[in-house]
Amino acid sequence: MRTLHKLPFWCPKHATGMDRLLNTFRIRSSLVRECLAECLGVYIMILFGCGSVAQVTTSENSNGHYLSINLGFALGTTFGVYVSRGVSGAHLNPAVSLSLCFLGRHPWTRLPFYVLFQILGAFMAAATVALQYYDAIQFYSGGHLTVSGPKATAGIFSTYPADYLSLWGGIMDQVVGTAALMVCILALGDTRNSPAPAGLQPVLVGAVVLVIGVSMGSNSGYALNPARDIGPRLFTYIAGWGDEVFRAGRSWWWVPLVATCAGALVGTLIYELLIEVHHPEKGLISESSAQGQATENRQAVELHPEKNNPKDGLDGTLM
Amino acid sequence: MRTLHKLPFWCPKHATGMDRLLNTFRIRSSLVRECLAECLGVYIMILFGCGSVAQVTTSENSNGHYLSINLGFALGTTFGVYVSRGVSGAHLNPAVSLSLCFLGRHPWTRLPFYVLFQILGAFMAAATVALQYYDAIQFYSGGHLTVSGPKATAGIFSTYPADYLSLWGGIMDQVVGTAALMVCILALGDTRNSPAPAGLQPVLVGAVVLVIGVSMGSNSGYALNPARDIGPRLFTYIAGWGDEVFRAGRSWWWVPLVATCAGALVGTLIYELLIEVHHPEKGLISESSAQGQATENRQAVELHPEKNNPKDGLDGTLM
Amino acid sequence: MRTLHKLPFWCPKHATGMDRLLNTFRIRSSLVRECLAECLGVYIMILFGCGSVAQVTTSENSNGHYLSINLGFALGTTFGVYVSRGVSGAHLNPAVSLSLCFLGRHPWTRLPFYVLFQILGAFMAAATVALQYYDAIQFYSGGHLTVSGPKATAGIFSTYPADYLSLWGGIMDQVVGTAALMVCILALGDTRNSPAPAGLQPVLVGAVVLVIGVSMGSNSGYALNPARDIGPRLFTYIAGWGDEVFRAGRSWWWVPLVATCAGALVGTLIYELLIEVHHPEKGLISESSAQGQATENRQAVELHPEKNNPKDGLDGTLM
Amino acid sequence: MRTLHKLPFWCPKHATGMDRLLNTFRIRSSLVRECLAECLGVYIMILFGCGSVAQVTTSENSNGHYLSINLGFALGTTFGVYVSRGVSGAHLNPAVSLSLCFLGRHPWTRLPFYVLFQILGAFMAAATVALQYYDAIQFYSGGHLTVSGPKATAGIFSTYPADYLSLWGGIMDQVVGTAALMVCILALGDTRNSPAPAGLQPVLVGAVVLVIGVSMGSNSGYALNPARDIGPRLFTYIAGWGDEVFRAGRSWWWVPLVATCAGALVGTLIYELLIEVHHPEKGLISESSAQGQATENRQAVELHPEKNNPKDGLDGTLM
Repeated sequence: MRTLHKLPFWCPKHATGMDRLLNTFRIRSSLVRECLAECLGVYIMILFGCGSVAQVTTSENSNGHYLSINLGFALGTTFGVYVSRGVSGAHLNPAVSLSLCFLGRHPWTRLPFYVLFQILGAFMAAATVALQYYDAIQFYSGGHLTVSGPKATAGIFSTYPADYLSLWGGIMDQVVGTAALMVCILALGDTRNSPAPAGLQPVLVGAVVLVIGVSMGSNSGYALNPARDIGPRLFTYIAGWGDEVFRAGRSWWWVPLVATCAGALVGTLIYELLIEVHHPEKGLISESSAQGQATENRQAVELHPEKNNPKDGLDGTLM
Repeated sequence: MRTLHKLPFWCPKHATGMDRLLNTFRIRSSLVRECLAECLGVYIMILFGCGSVAQVTTSENSNGHYLSINLGFALGTTFGVYVSRGVSGAHLNPAVSLSLCFLGRHPWTRLPFYVLFQILGAFMAAATVALQYYDAIQFYSGGHLTVSGPKATAGIFSTYPADYLSLWGGIMDQVVGTAALMVCILALGDTRNSPAPAGLQPVLVGAVVLVIGVSMGSNSGYALNPARDIGPRLFTYIAGWGDEVFRAGRSWWWVPLVATCAGALVGTLIYELLIEVHHPEKGLISESSAQGQATENRQAVELHPEKNNPKDGLDGTLM
Repeated sequence: MRTLHKLPFWCPKHATGMDRLLNTFRIRSSLVRECLAECLGVYIMILFGCGSVAQVTTSENSNGHYLSINLGFALGTTFGVYVSRGVSGAHLNPAVSLSLCFLGRHPWTRLPFYVLFQILGAFMAAATVALQYYDAIQFYSGGHLTVSGPKATAGIFSTYPADYLSLWGGIMDQVVGTAALMVCILALGDTRNSPAPAGLQPVLVGAVVLVIGVSMGSNSGYALNPARDIGPRLFTYIAGWGDEVFRAGRSWWWVPLVATCAGALVGTLIYELLIEVHHPEKGLISESSAQGQATENRQAVELHPEKNNPKDGLDGTLM
Repeated sequence: MRTLHKLPFWCPKHATGMDRLLNTFRIRSSLVRECLAECLGVYIMILFGCGSVAQVTTSENSNGHYLSINLGFALGTTFGVYVSRGVSGAHLNPAVSLSLCFLGRHPWTRLPFYVLFQILGAFMAAATVALQYYDAIQFYSGGHLTVSGPKATAGIFSTYPADYLSLWGGIMDQVVGTAALMVCILALGDTRNSPAPAGLQPVLVGAVVLVIGVSMGSNSGYALNPARDIGPRLFTYIAGWGDEVFRAGRSWWWVPLVATCAGALVGTLIYELLIEVHHPEKGLISESSAQGQATENRQAVELHPEKNNPKDGLDGTLM
């Protein structure tokens, strides 16, 4: 106890009575743990994201602008990833999970569980935002929960297309946006390219969401993520906005589900075929590359010459 | 002296005459040191935070917008943490101190001292802002220090609810906001999840404050922190705004004290029960996890095989 | 497979069936790989950059302001660099490639290939933006693709000078801007000065683009990059804006090609002559400098005393 | 040459013909090198900072807002520090140099040279901004270079107080602002507290400037730096704004010179007396502290048990 008070509060704890009490709730199934982490990660992401839309909408731009919404989703993503990455890998997005299954980096059998809990997290976050902004939404809308019109509030929760947008334009918009997301995410973690530092990858994933919001948010609100869109949409359907949420924008609701998955696969193929498959053989990296991260790998290898095993070097030291 | 001038100015110093003079003021009591650090940390946080509100208010949005205020509190928190973390752990918030005591990571006996000096720091920062913006506040308000109305200036210092907000809405708002803060802070420092780099955690704690301001600031100004609210409120009570600061918003003043503490405990329980208690046993981390930080841990362990002690590895190497 | 699902999705993959299929597309020529990487890097940069201009223009400032455009180009540059740096060095800019050839850090023989693929990437990105914003541009402009006037849309893709700008003013503007870019980029990577961490250099290169946009964007839209300007201009020439794109602004189009190259060379000379050539001899660094990075170098050298070779230490350990 | 083209362009170079040519300009005097670095560092800082004011002023807020100016000075400072830190320590500010001399961390004999070249860099940067924005300033002001009034342009270069500001209010404003700057800078580099990573300290110093601009910019434009103010003021005096630049604001010009130096000393004393002098003895750090950086220190010490010398450990390993 003597030095305990000097630990920064984010330090790992020594076992205390409270720890032992909490540990009685411990779950050992890795699938359940991962599903809980995905659920909480998406919850945090949507809580901040949809909260920022609620703030800008109900304050009529006096407590924020479009850029605040971009920041809300970006930093929401960052902290959603910090919350869950060490447990589940922080997919937080069915389209990302699908792409990783496609690449063989995630087992197909876990895909439905991940998707279900991602949608559940988004649904609960939308409910929390509605509760937190209940008074504000009532005040702003005069108690009429509408999907379109000057005092529409459904856009706080889900995405709707701009009036001018055609169906094919909307599909194109979501395919391009999600493909760009996926190219950037794969590059950030590609240890044979120039990856971001592991501890800061959540920040950079958030920055990808920021730049997509800044450059591709105008047409249809950059869903990029089926769970981010369908979970809050289901909530609004139940909570009083009615089935207009599925009919609005010429039945727009299915586009963020299908086009984002297609876009993620397109982006995955682009990065794989233009960059990743052309990297030199793994076993040759420490000899052939003068690039930063690979060099750190070399340093690590020199420290453990008996362990000069390419797989170890890449999986273990660099990430 | 030959190479001294080449040291970057933030380098540790060699003892000089000035050092010896300053060292005569040295205090060895760890409690006093920690209280001074908490006080200065909160002072810096509120100086920048309330200063940004003063700038936006008195310039009537011409020298900043709501986003400036979000940045002021966010970066204020960042630098408040940098100033105090190495000494006191940078709680800077009675609700955080309370949660850490609850988890057994901080001794209950130090709690009242921490809280007292946190409030003192906030009080003095409010006084400094009032001094720095004295001319501006006089000019803007015409010399009438009011709590509500078109030229109200009490909101520079403490939080007040929006007109539409009900009491329960306000309590809910502060509980959700502080719970989200606590979940993110615990995740950022959880070495068995995917923590942020130790030297950048103050930046990321600031980013949490930024995203909460962007997404949950509209209802009641995101106090999140009893000291941040009551310290400046006491200052305004004394400095000329009168007891209206306690009566405004249907006696709003106690909500940021009580609801934030409740919210911090809720957030702590959410993170503990959904994520932290389910982590694999500490002693198994270096075998069972492929995740970044844990791997660095493994590397460290390999460097010192004779020291492969889970507690050492976690407390020492990673933070 | 047992632990595979626990890997963060940005982890290096184990070979799977999909990997083997993708690897059949593998190209071993380093020149082709580098050209593909430069092309995709510039594509990402311009996709986000011009996309942000399209969003601000077609939404008439309701979904973003000038600062959004600054962020779009800045983060576009960041992710363009992450995508390509490990393969091609991430020049992404003919003026940068030229400067590096001039300094002897890049072979002149590869210059034309790099430039060609940089322009190709920018051209394709402009085409993608036009496709993604097709409905929005039609709606905004009423179907009239014009280069100047109140509903002009050519400025989404290429830069045009402000009405007040003289030719010499424009040349000066681009020379100063590109020189400032080059000074900062060279400083960020100068291991004998105080370089940024290797894994975060793409973020800081983006920050240079941000600050140039914030401080030097007003006169002529901070092209800074011949490929960024001529690729999209060629696209607009073909896609319906006509030869006005070359005639507008008193035939402005050649200034971003010539003045940026001149500016990059000026900036290179400034940094080299004021800072880099005066650094102490390489072999003496670990003794003579008390500065951070160099000290890490010293540490590395102490770990491998038998390898105390200046070139190794600098090329290998620090980057 | 075979692998040369694969080097990222920020890699240290191998000696080439161009290198040998440039090296003929090499200067070995450390004082001259440092003065050149301070001059270029301040030049970059003011080029971006005053450039952002010029952009916002001459575009009448259409190409940026007050926040753009905050970003311009913040990132200007960041890159000014990157350019010069490895050579001169990146003071970039006579008030900072003075404080470091006062603490015995910089030799008094070098102070006048540093100050002179800092002012020179700011003067030249102001001249460059005036050249780059010559057409814009002429267009905006109609050719009348005025210090006050609706089309005043002297504020692009130097700071002037708000109309409501009293002399004592202005002095207080600059003392508080510069003291806050100094407290944060000293905390960021205090290796016995919780320092920022060495390679990112320039970014965090920029963030300090950002938050001061956001929270303390309204009264008198946050000079914080005698050289930043007097250099450009001298330029405007010569370049056509006349002696009104010294008479405006009741002879405001001397306040940013004197009050910033006083403020820097106040901030230094606050940080020293509240935090730094109370740190445990240097030699005891590796035993007594559980805090992050110190632990890395411990790790380093364990790697080199024969070198367990407090001074080495602190000066060498941590920075």
